[in-house]
Amino acid sequence: MVRISELARQAGFSIPTLKYYIREGLLQAGTAVAPNRADYGDDHVNRLRLIRTLREIGGLDIGRIKRIVSAIEDESLSRHELFGVVERARAADVADPASSETAASRAEVDRFIDELGWRVRPDAAGRQELANALVALRGLGRDYDAGVFRPYAEAADRMAAREVRSISTAEPHSVAVERMVVGTVVFGAVFDTLRRLAHEHHSSGSD
Amino acid sequence: MVRISELARQAGFSIPTLKYYIREGLLQAGTAVAPNRADYGDDHVNRLRLIRTLREIGGLDIGRIKRIVSAIEDESLSRHELFGVVERARAADVADPASSETAASRAEVDRFIDELGWRVRPDAAGRQELANALVALRGLGRDYDAGVFRPYAEAADRMAAREVRSISTAEPHSVAVERMVVGTVVFGAVFDTLRRLAHEHHSSGSD
Repeated sequence: MVRISELARQAGFSIPTLKYYIREGLLQAGTAVAPNRADYGDDHVNRLRLIRTLREIGGLDIGRIKRIVSAIEDESLSRHELFGVVERARAADVADPASSETAASRAEVDRFIDELGWRVRPDAAGRQELANALVALRGLGRDYDAGVFRPYAEAADRMAAREVRSISTAEPHSVAVERMVVGTVVFGAVFDTLRRLAHEHHSSGSD
Repeated sequence: MVRISELARQAGFSIPTLKYYIREGLLQAGTAVAPNRADYGDDHVNRLRLIRTLREIGGLDIGRIKRIVSAIEDESLSRHELFGVVERARAADVADPASSETAASRAEVDRFIDELGWRVRPDAAGRQELANALVALRGLGRDYDAGVFRPYAEAADRMAAREVRSISTAEPHSVAVERMVVGTVVFGAVFDTLRRLAHEHHSSGSD
């Protein structure tokens, strides 16, 4: 157990930042051992590593990190529910369908997800993100329908199936949920980076 | 050809925003037809759609969008070079290796990319992003080496090969580069969204 100054040093955060995280509920309060003195342990170090990963690798702001941390702490959530929370916390800030064009695209996306046979909440933010992407592609002059997403959906399906399988159901809840969150965020960023690098590779010598 | 007020209305931006984009070099100046009067055409509408897509779907800020737009306008860039520009513009703000741990991870990532046989600039930002992801995963207690990226690299390789092939070399430069940029950004966002939804699907009924 260490004082807050030592925790800050070990974790590479400033003391005011740690106090801010505690006030905001991101970091657990320390154990009070005397007036004006609290001690911090491994759980705090681990939580700070998680916050740093979500912030720096996942690019998530404090509000979104807080929603994920609250879900991790909620032992009553099933893994499926937790993936739902992470889905929402990582969602883009998307506008609701404002035009008949986006409403029609949304209906098309919903049909597409039904055809895939995916069990996904009707209010999953990702549905509207896909509809907005379709509207954007059409606005840029591509004559696309939701079928253009199919190869991406198939790749995502294989990847997610492998990832969900890799989380053993024998693990304690707290370990499993941390794994899920980190896996979703870090490997999502890793894949996006690898795809960019692969574009560079495959375009070499193309002109 | 239309006045700036009509362009703003059509494209759904405010006039001050359009003037800001012109000052910053994101949007081409209009054609001067009289003192204090310029006309705008389809190229402007298309550029504004591109800016909106990069901003809203890709989550890119004005500085990054400007680097991409400049590259699109530079006819001398090969497609390979343009993918390099997009790679950099979409890169996370990553710290340089500050510790021996990150330097060792970076060397491991460089070897991994060599093993894949990918032709990627030695200074591609993605290399450091992967190294930082590896450090983050290890900090969170996973005993991982760069090999954990292999299934992601294989999926990215297949996806990028298909995407690069889909850009016909017969297309004019400006059309091809816009296709590349939009494809990279929009389908990157689409895949990330689909992976999140697939997690939700595959975890349903898992506990």
